[in-house]
Amino acid sequence: MRAVDIIMDKRDGKELSPEAIEFLVRAYVAGEIPDYQISAWAMAVFFKGMTAEETASLTGAMLRSGAVMDLSGIEGPFVDKHSTGGVGDKTSLILAPLAAALGIRDPMMSGRALGNTGGTLDKLESIPGYRVNLDTEEFRRILARDGFAMTSQSKDIVPADRLLYALRDVTATVESVPLITASILSKKAAEGADALVFDVKYGSGAFMKKIEDAEALARSLADTGAAMGKKISALLTDMDEPLGNMTGNFLEVEESLDCLEGKGPADLMEVTLELAARMAVLGGRAADAVEGRALCETCLAGGRPRELFLSNVESQGGSAEKLLEMRGKYRSGYSASVKAGSGSFISRIDAGKVGRAGIDLGVGRNRTEDAVSPVAGIEFHRKRGDAVKPGDTVMTVWAAGEGGLAAALPRLRDAVEYSDAPPPPRRLVLKEISACCP
Amino acid sequence: MRAVDIIMDKRDGKELSPEAIEFLVRAYVAGEIPDYQISAWAMAVFFKGMTAEETASLTGAMLRSGAVMDLSGIEGPFVDKHSTGGVGDKTSLILAPLAAALGIRDPMMSGRALGNTGGTLDKLESIPGYRVNLDTEEFRRILARDGFAMTSQSKDIVPADRLLYALRDVTATVESVPLITASILSKKAAEGADALVFDVKYGSGAFMKKIEDAEALARSLADTGAAMGKKISALLTDMDEPLGNMTGNFLEVEESLDCLEGKGPADLMEVTLELAARMAVLGGRAADAVEGRALCETCLAGGRPRELFLSNVESQGGSAEKLLEMRGKYRSGYSASVKAGSGSFISRIDAGKVGRAGIDLGVGRNRTEDAVSPVAGIEFHRKRGDAVKPGDTVMTVWAAGEGGLAAALPRLRDAVEYSDAPPPPRRLVLKEISACCP
Repeated sequence: MRAVDIIMDKRDGKELSPEAIEFLVRAYVAGEIPDYQISAWAMAVFFKGMTAEETASLTGAMLRSGAVMDLSGIEGPFVDKHSTGGVGDKTSLILAPLAAALGIRDPMMSGRALGNTGGTLDKLESIPGYRVNLDTEEFRRILARDGFAMTSQSKDIVPADRLLYALRDVTATVESVPLITASILSKKAAEGADALVFDVKYGSGAFMKKIEDAEALARSLADTGAAMGKKISALLTDMDEPLGNMTGNFLEVEESLDCLEGKGPADLMEVTLELAARMAVLGGRAADAVEGRALCETCLAGGRPRELFLSNVESQGGSAEKLLEMRGKYRSGYSASVKAGSGSFISRIDAGKVGRAGIDLGVGRNRTEDAVSPVAGIEFHRKRGDAVKPGDTVMTVWAAGEGGLAAALPRLRDAVEYSDAPPPPRRLVLKEISACCP
Repeated sequence: MRAVDIIMDKRDGKELSPEAIEFLVRAYVAGEIPDYQISAWAMAVFFKGMTAEETASLTGAMLRSGAVMDLSGIEGPFVDKHSTGGVGDKTSLILAPLAAALGIRDPMMSGRALGNTGGTLDKLESIPGYRVNLDTEEFRRILARDGFAMTSQSKDIVPADRLLYALRDVTATVESVPLITASILSKKAAEGADALVFDVKYGSGAFMKKIEDAEALARSLADTGAAMGKKISALLTDMDEPLGNMTGNFLEVEESLDCLEGKGPADLMEVTLELAARMAVLGGRAADAVEGRALCETCLAGGRPRELFLSNVESQGGSAEKLLEMRGKYRSGYSASVKAGSGSFISRIDAGKVGRAGIDLGVGRNRTEDAVSPVAGIEFHRKRGDAVKPGDTVMTVWAAGEGGLAAALPRLRDAVEYSDAPPPPRRLVLKEISACCP
């Protein structure tokens, strides 16, 4: 088998065999196929796509390039949630202890913030002492005890994805649905979950700006996951405005605690409970999403998820007591507020612009090697649909430093749009796309 | 400027600016842009194409990556011919002295055989002593004296093309009209010719199998050449059957001499004279192709082109006397013949199959580092349209060795097709596509 022939076949629109895809991935990871052939192949995939079978072959080949989490001896079911990333998206921090309280185990390996979107690991690390670099034994022990554990990926998980993603990033081949699917699913499959719930976001603050693109990715994730023997549910959710009233690292931990205490903002609770309902269904705790949602609401109200969250903080090196003491106080000294301009109502807060301002503030990062600040972020006092008078405080803003604050403020002012009449209501969860293993 | 943004723009169908293309080529040759970005870009070009302006920018940038032949002090006009390559295609050896006899100078830099198609340099080197690695001073001196000189490209001519072609070859990005155009034109422009005649071949023995593809390339060569200030004429010619009655290295030198002596086969003379007529027109020696052809026929009959050819042999290190003595005798000892099978007429001799058999015989090569034989080749005693009886000798075959002969004979038998009635006549020169500088 020769790499150039495989590239040519894909270029000419042919379906690649599982053997050809396995050869390509294995030889690439072994250093036997050079980057320049893989980047040409990736560009051909960008233009010609992949069938569900090809995507499943690629996902499987990438998965087999590294280690898989050993969950033997721990009782399931194992269900995890993955989000394509958004602004103010802290649902993972609420979902993991909620699922655990339902007897579902969530073996969560997460990523860090990059670009507009926040990262679960950065949020958790804003809790002093919290460790996300668990070794396998710690991960297994905490997962068995708390019902969930949160860790970064070790180097031996899907090395093919690390190589391929770095190459795609510099060759304009990121935006390919089958390549995105294989990247996401190979890593999630390596966690050992039986079922996966995907939050595929669309809108200005999401990776996919257009609903059609998000739907194509959701369909691909569902079909490919099913072909790999996983139960899958994917929700298309709105990411045109920030989710909840807080963006930032420690700020989002605080808002997650609010949600676990029944005080969460409506938009964040809506998306969280819809995702939780699917986890309950796929984990066998509810017959359908309506029953699942009711179960989750009751469970949250009982307070067990909050206990499990605080227990996990202790398990992973933090102090629950200290965390609760820090609420409302752990903030940067570089602070300012954004006041309302003209207009009677806020018609939109552009999540994309807020996300970019977040990079200035120190919430997110442009490059993987940049540091983030635990205490930077934004609190929204008014959001879409709220009546405002000129001079009302719309946001309080905290930055890692003076320069970042100055850079972020004009972007944030620009992110707020006003209207004379209330804007029409917004649908947060647009559609569910699900698939079950054959 | 970042390479990844240029790749993305091309991927998304945008027209690249001359500055972006110059940056890409210059930084690639300087080693500042890695192969994996250029291969992804080339694949994007494969799918999205390039405008005539982009192709001209690329050609110019590639040309500027290296040296240009200095023809100052030598009197023009300078006109050269380029062929996309065929089987039995020896027109260059006839055209250069013919143009020179008309007072047109042909500064010819040629390539070697690769795959199906023969190479002018390999043919010339079959003349004992003939040197094709002229330095600039020798090239200028011989061009000034004989009216033409034939050399290989020095390393400092269009280094961008050497890098890019090697990369395209292993990334399935060879078959892109704008990339082919820039590769051909940058090298021809580096010769310093004012006008170029292109022989763009189609058919089983050509690089372009389909007429449409050949026409697209001819159109692109004409438009891009004109945008660079060159006078261009491109002929679409048939390469479904070998051109002339000889393929091989020394065999083709002999057949070229036959043509220079008025004894050339009709098909070869037809293509040669049509190309020569365009050289005469672009060189200002004739008002149109009809007048140009008549001029070339008269000139050939006068014998001056033959004298100039033999003079060039002496100039480049060979012996004209020895060459003439070797005619009809300089052949390999490994020989066999191919006899006619059933059928009353030969309806086709497949040039593609003959070309591949030529590689077995030692006429051509699969890899640039393979050696070729001066004395291997094929003489066709019967061609398309000729009446045959079973057992008639269709070809005499000479091979570099026993193994090659055994491998080639079944291919050559398979290349001959028969019919009960004479096949319809074949048009050798299908169309002219020309363009003049703005």
